[in-house]
Amino acid sequence: MNLQEIFKDLTLSEHNKMMISSKLKKIMVTKGETILHPNDTAYYQYYVVQGCLRSFFTDKTAKEHTIQFAITDWWISDYTAFFRKEKAILQIECIQDATLLRLSRDDMNEIFDKIPNIERYFRIKTESYIGSFQKRIIGDLSKTAKEQYIDFVNTYPNIEQLVKNYHIASYLGITSESLSRVRKEIARN
Amino acid sequence: MNLQEIFKDLTLSEHNKMMISSKLKKIMVTKGETILHPNDTAYYQYYVVQGCLRSFFTDKTAKEHTIQFAITDWWISDYTAFFRKEKAILQIECIQDATLLRLSRDDMNEIFDKIPNIERYFRIKTESYIGSFQKRIIGDLSKTAKEQYIDFVNTYPNIEQLVKNYHIASYLGITSESLSRVRKEIARN
Repeated sequence: MNLQEIFKDLTLSEHNKMMISSKLKKIMVTKGETILHPNDTAYYQYYVVQGCLRSFFTDKTAKEHTIQFAITDWWISDYTAFFRKEKAILQIECIQDATLLRLSRDDMNEIFDKIPNIERYFRIKTESYIGSFQKRIIGDLSKTAKEQYIDFVNTYPNIEQLVKNYHIASYLGITSESLSRVRKEIARN
Repeated sequence: MNLQEIFKDLTLSEHNKMMISSKLKKIMVTKGETILHPNDTAYYQYYVVQGCLRSFFTDKTAKEHTIQFAITDWWISDYTAFFRKEKAILQIECIQDATLLRLSRDDMNEIFDKIPNIERYFRIKTESYIGSFQKRIIGDLSKTAKEQYIDFVNTYPNIEQLVKNYHIASYLGITSESLSRVRKEIARN
């Protein structure tokens, strides 16, 4: 695996690269497969080499709410559960055949102890998730479906070919019919 | 200032304590004062020594949505703006006279370069915010007002004496009347 693709312009010694590589386990998952179920302990986060996954929450009425998509170069987990070592409330499902690198919480902490630059990389990643979450809370609170759809397209460019309309609708919290309406409205302008 | 109260069981040398203290500026704010306006650049985050603040978003209809409260031992900012060096979309208002320690983004980065333990402290803080944000997204999506109120009380124990009912209602995304109803329902059980 090419760690520079993940950690970009971080300078890593050969020794550290070997250490990190030994902790990242490559796994292949196929469309439709679930890699985390609600009530599982969330031991891992996953880096997407290629393919597409989503995390979602199923409410009491069996309605699905997509929390996050992950495409190439994204990390995905049930972060609340992963960080707090709690049981997952989200499900993570593969929606396009994917190649992933799996990293456990314990291995991540071991890497942090040895390579402060990697702790910094994840600190900055975590900060950027805060941004996405805050934008979603405010989106839910105040934006029109059209504005939320535009935010979605900006957050996940080129994802629309990979995911089904009902995935996008469940991310935006609208019906598939409303999604079609929004798209038509945008196409007209 | 007693840095051990903030950084708990971190071991800090006298030299490092002096360095950190030189970056934390003590400020006093009074009830009603705004320390961050929308469209300001969010240079700072604030540690609450005592008092109470809230961050909120005002939507197009002039309705306020409380995003976060901060009481003793909490940090507060418009984190999306603070982390990304963007303009704030939130307002931060003092709701009980407060003593704060102000830390700029640049000073924080300088501390991180010199004291990796402090970078770890904030990495873990940031992770715990992810948890709160995810819980709020899922709360907005699926929970009853009563369930969301119970989550609020667990997240902010003892805050109810400090804040007004409409602050809590604006955090829960319900009316003050619904909040009263929820409280009565809980008191009856």
